[in-house]
Amino acid sequence: MLLLNAREVERLADMPRLVAAVEAGVREQAAGQVVLPPRLNLPNGRGFFRLMPTVMNGSGIMGFKAFHGSVQDGVRYFIAIYEQASGRLLAMMDAHYLTAARTGATTGVATRFMANRNARRVAVIGSGLEARTNLLGVCAVREVERVTAFSPNRERRAAFAERMGLELKIEVRACDSPESCVEGADIVVVATNTTGKGDGIAFRGAWARAGMHVNAIGSTMPKLREIDADSFARAGRIVIDCQTRQIEEESGDVIDALANSAYDRGKVIELQEVVAGRAAGRADDDQITLFKSVGTAVQDVTAGYAVYQEARRLGIGSEVPDFLELKTF
Amino acid sequence: MLLLNAREVERLADMPRLVAAVEAGVREQAAGQVVLPPRLNLPNGRGFFRLMPTVMNGSGIMGFKAFHGSVQDGVRYFIAIYEQASGRLLAMMDAHYLTAARTGATTGVATRFMANRNARRVAVIGSGLEARTNLLGVCAVREVERVTAFSPNRERRAAFAERMGLELKIEVRACDSPESCVEGADIVVVATNTTGKGDGIAFRGAWARAGMHVNAIGSTMPKLREIDADSFARAGRIVIDCQTRQIEEESGDVIDALANSAYDRGKVIELQEVVAGRAAGRADDDQITLFKSVGTAVQDVTAGYAVYQEARRLGIGSEVPDFLELKTF
Repeated sequence: MLLLNAREVERLADMPRLVAAVEAGVREQAAGQVVLPPRLNLPNGRGFFRLMPTVMNGSGIMGFKAFHGSVQDGVRYFIAIYEQASGRLLAMMDAHYLTAARTGATTGVATRFMANRNARRVAVIGSGLEARTNLLGVCAVREVERVTAFSPNRERRAAFAERMGLELKIEVRACDSPESCVEGADIVVVATNTTGKGDGIAFRGAWARAGMHVNAIGSTMPKLREIDADSFARAGRIVIDCQTRQIEEESGDVIDALANSAYDRGKVIELQEVVAGRAAGRADDDQITLFKSVGTAVQDVTAGYAVYQEARRLGIGSEVPDFLELKTF
Repeated sequence: MLLLNAREVERLADMPRLVAAVEAGVREQAAGQVVLPPRLNLPNGRGFFRLMPTVMNGSGIMGFKAFHGSVQDGVRYFIAIYEQASGRLLAMMDAHYLTAARTGATTGVATRFMANRNARRVAVIGSGLEARTNLLGVCAVREVERVTAFSPNRERRAAFAERMGLELKIEVRACDSPESCVEGADIVVVATNTTGKGDGIAFRGAWARAGMHVNAIGSTMPKLREIDADSFARAGRIVIDCQTRQIEEESGDVIDALANSAYDRGKVIELQEVVAGRAAGRADDDQITLFKSVGTAVQDVTAGYAVYQEARRLGIGSEVPDFLELKTF
């Protein structure tokens, strides 16, 4: 069994590889080869304890993510990956960075199928870890020429622009307002630090223009908000990464849009349908499209397995011999 | 985070301590301080993948057991323990031995409340790991003077008798038949190697005598059998370690007894009710009583936490620094 800490995982989590892994996992899911129950969400004193397992019978792996904590105290993430045929526990890894990275990779998959082919200009709202990984996800699937970035704190947005400009080797410009940030953008990434304070709206549907593709990843619990009801109303197509029922229970943005009659279920498609080619990511070049994700165990386990394979190739991580003894009958 | 392998866990899993830990955990459950969802049971190609989480708000810990495999290929068990207040992952441990040990500890708790106080003679049907741990559990709560043991293989039952005699420092005698083994016994442990082959019945209700207490732990899946329908019919009181619905879905013995109209729900009580003193373990000295367990996450997590505490006290295990980085918002 290979034990990988947060720094090792980050080093191994190359974005184009993760996008390919998540896309393959979603395709396997669309082929009916995946067992994916609703995540278990247990309350505890100050926060939550969530378990997300999946069994992937196409690729022959299985595993789970366990994460726990609260917005006030912080959250810890952990992924375990098993090989079905041998029954071996392959790896246990810190999934702090990987959770953000697989979310970005999933945004990459959605953007590949939903954004216009010639999309070149990307706007990022947010300056944290998810803003970075989601921008990397988009850049893995489109020839991005220009990035604009906004977050309320001037120093943070300037630092984000500088870091991402060096990393991507393209122009990344910090903007003074979200409106100026998204103006002229073909693709928008909304990845905000949604602490549940204030109304938290970071992107408004009124700002969307014809042909724009919006990815929103921050609202993964009922109290978390980042896009307004108009964002759902103005989108001609809404793609989600999980089952309809789950997103309507878990995402504060979706719950609010439903309450404001702005969430038309007739426009909503699961990502697996799009990846499998059973539904189009967009109807035409002018449609406004929206990808709303809350995360799935398929994303975690396929990304974790890709990291494990790369760790083996490069000889990174700590080997723990004889962990999980086999009980025979 | 402390990593404990199978040998370390076995060394730390002192039975009287585990019995006390499981009893405290069941008491906490009875006080309404425990979140315990039905276990997640996912099918995979050749077997199963089960996840059993619990959040214990009285003792301030939480965790889960994950186990997977099949009777043909063998099973691997893994337990993680967290501290709620700090959010820290305290330990990850191999739970091969611990699963058998906590089952034995739970049998100890049930036997404490259900067997006659002056019970001295114990019969064990089975000669494997669970036969051993369940006998240890019984011996932790009663002054056992004599043990008889049966399993179909002569060499295995002789070896079991020799080993347990040395370990317990009392007479342990191997018997040639299950009937002679249980004759005169006050307490019976049925802990057989239920592989699902044949009809698998190792104990029959017809053999029970007045005042006998029977513990049966082997039938934890629909295809696994070890006690017949009569065992349920002849018992005046049946205590189970989980919810009624769960045991009726998971235990082949219970499913068969139900099908043969031998499982009277009016006689069935949850262990937590007995431990909390809201129900008696037996009505009188002559009643035949039956404890049927399938296992719960409360047993796993309380036993795992007891092992962790002992590991810290003795300085056993491998420390993994900085595993599970805290993500702050």
